[in-house]
Amino acid sequence: SKKLRIAVLAGDGIGKEVMPEGIRVLEAAAKRFDLPLEMQHFDWAHCDYFAAHGQMMPDDWKAQLQGFDAILFGAVGWPATVPDHVSLWGSLLKFRREFDQYINLRPVRLFEGVPCPLAGRMPGDIDYYVVRENTEGEYTALGGIMFEGTDREMVLQEAVFTRKGADRLLKFAFDLAQSRSKKHVTLATKSNGIAISMPWWDKCAEAMAKNYPDVVLDKQHIDILTARFVLQPGRFDVVAATNLFGDILSDLGPATTGTIGLAPSANLNPERNFPSLFEPVHGSAPDIYGQNIANPIAMIWSVALMLDFLGNGQGAWRSAHDAIVDAISQTILSGPRTPDLGGQAKTPDVGKAIAQVL
Amino acid sequence: SKKLRIAVLAGDGIGKEVMPEGIRVLEAAAKRFDLPLEMQHFDWAHCDYFAAHGQMMPDDWKAQLQGFDAILFGAVGWPATVPDHVSLWGSLLKFRREFDQYINLRPVRLFEGVPCPLAGRMPGDIDYYVVRENTEGEYTALGGIMFEGTDREMVLQEAVFTRKGADRLLKFAFDLAQSRSKKHVTLATKSNGIAISMPWWDKCAEAMAKNYPDVVLDKQHIDILTARFVLQPGRFDVVAATNLFGDILSDLGPATTGTIGLAPSANLNPERNFPSLFEPVHGSAPDIYGQNIANPIAMIWSVALMLDFLGNGQGAWRSAHDAIVDAISQTILSGPRTPDLGGQAKTPDVGKAIAQVL
Ligand SMILES: CC(C)[C@H](C(=O)O)[C@@H](O)C(=O)O
Ligand SMILES: CC(C)[C@H](C(=O)O)[C@@H](O)C(=O)O
Repeated sequence: SKKLRIAVLAGDGIGKEVMPEGIRVLEAAAKRFDLPLEMQHFDWAHCDYFAAHGQMMPDDWKAQLQGFDAILFGAVGWPATVPDHVSLWGSLLKFRREFDQYINLRPVRLFEGVPCPLAGRMPGDIDYYVVRENTEGEYTALGGIMFEGTDREMVLQEAVFTRKGADRLLKFAFDLAQSRSKKHVTLATKSNGIAISMPWWDKCAEAMAKNYPDVVLDKQHIDILTARFVLQPGRFDVVAATNLFGDILSDLGPATTGTIGLAPSANLNPERNFPSLFEPVHGSAPDIYGQNIANPIAMIWSVALMLDFLGNGQGAWRSAHDAIVDAISQTILSGPRTPDLGGQAKTPDVGKAIAQVL
Repeated sequence: SKKLRIAVLAGDGIGKEVMPEGIRVLEAAAKRFDLPLEMQHFDWAHCDYFAAHGQMMPDDWKAQLQGFDAILFGAVGWPATVPDHVSLWGSLLKFRREFDQYINLRPVRLFEGVPCPLAGRMPGDIDYYVVRENTEGEYTALGGIMFEGTDREMVLQEAVFTRKGADRLLKFAFDLAQSRSKKHVTLATKSNGIAISMPWWDKCAEAMAKNYPDVVLDKQHIDILTARFVLQPGRFDVVAATNLFGDILSDLGPATTGTIGLAPSANLNPERNFPSLFEPVHGSAPDIYGQNIANPIAMIWSVALMLDFLGNGQGAWRSAHDAIVDAISQTILSGPRTPDLGGQAKTPDVGKAIAQVL
């Protein structure tokens, strides 16, 4: 059968450390489950490339990547040399937007064996998805600075939402909730303060909920929602959120499960008109780069999400996904563990252990 | 000496339950420390008033309140009858903006005797301030809906920042940090994603930091910042934030200290051109209203912040502040405690106990 093609971009910082472990596990899974895959590495979309070329990617980046079935991505950002908004808008945020990866799916789960920062929580108590809108909303470069350098200096920053964007995000969230046992969607809102866009989001969600009589919709303001991620995590199932709110919740959620070093994400174009992108939630982490102590599990779990997506959640691909997640669970329990989980292991130790279990 | 005048507005829901306890403690403190105070109650800025008058407040609300030295506020919002953005923009958000209460100061502290939802944290481990910009930013009714009801429906939502607004917020935050032992300011940013306003905030903060060589500035993206409120709360001292980010952080922070039922806030016009406003961070909480189980401590602590502000942090006023906070600490430790703290006490039990200690 035709091979599925995966573009590999490691990026900056610990992206370069965790990617080899992702690939190690990917290769082990492909071998065991006989998955027809091929990989191609690209040496751009990182800040060294920017230093040499004055831009993050070659002009024809889109043509180069367009034919791939998926993109496996490490992390981008090296603020000491390139401001974050330049490096991110020049790479990751371009992929998300130009490849219309409008769903950013981020599972949050407490694993057995991870010391939970929330007192008294057990595996099973924290198990939900953040479904984040990934192409519009608060992330824009629209607006500007006026009267710069004077007493009247002011800044306008625009957020842009479309009905199409809200509806397809909400549909995905409600479909996901319907497939789960709790059948519960939380909408992250702030309609009491942000007076145009957020009341509109509330209405979009209420309208969508009408199509899902068996799913409960619960609208919560983002402030109290973050409080409840800490105080009542068991109340969540599927959390639908705008780009910004989803960004916040998908760092906070994983933090409550012990470390953001576990959290994977899938940037999906569900229609498969463009390649989807899989990456850890953590960034390039300049503060720990170079020591090889980054936890590769977020990267490896992202590989599992990729395989599941490539195989439409079926057959050998689904089995490969499940086997990787099982191997992750086992390794978290038995060790080796990186320092964020209280261990002393190096990045490759963990990757090798997981590949071994596979 | 001339009496200082306090306007009292209880608002909706549990605002009506906690306010009497705030007043009980205020009266006890005034008596013990001989504070020249007088109170006046206003029966508007609540949703019943809206039901009767079609607006939250009388037309001359500003004239009625203008001469007061402070406003003691409960909570507003009763979404079953009035949408939140209508009730809030018709009351609290008007006060903040029209009385130019540009600082929203919110202490976050773990008290002895409160079961901490973060595993293994002790009093002293969590002790910081959120300094929130309170008059501009993401909270606007600017923008609109276009192509409504069609395939092209879209929404623009504007955020507006001024240099004056950013600078006075940052100055307050740096001054506060300078007066504390850690001398550390964290700026909540999102300059990697929100491409106009947030890089501009970064620059404003860097410029302000130059005036405070003894204070460290640490810029953190809001996503990882929320994660660190859970994972590394000890790293924070003074957190400076825009209106929205400050709103989020000042619910999340208190949640990590056990309950948002403790968190007070001071909406300050430091120049005293207008009355400042003191209120609990929690809202009207329709879900628990009517049972008299709301924790009045956030309200009572807000009273303490008010006295400190009224007395410029000096003399009998400062002593009254300190005595109230001590009485709160003692009562948390000895009980009675409301259900959010694991107890069975009613709202007035806690208020009476604190007044008693005073
Ligand atoms: C009620 C709401 C408008 C308000 C805010 O968002 O400012 C509240 O959450 C707060 O933090 O004071
Ligand atoms: C790096 C940054 C632009 C990005 C985002 O904000 O989307 C990251 O935080 C994420 O969550 O994927």
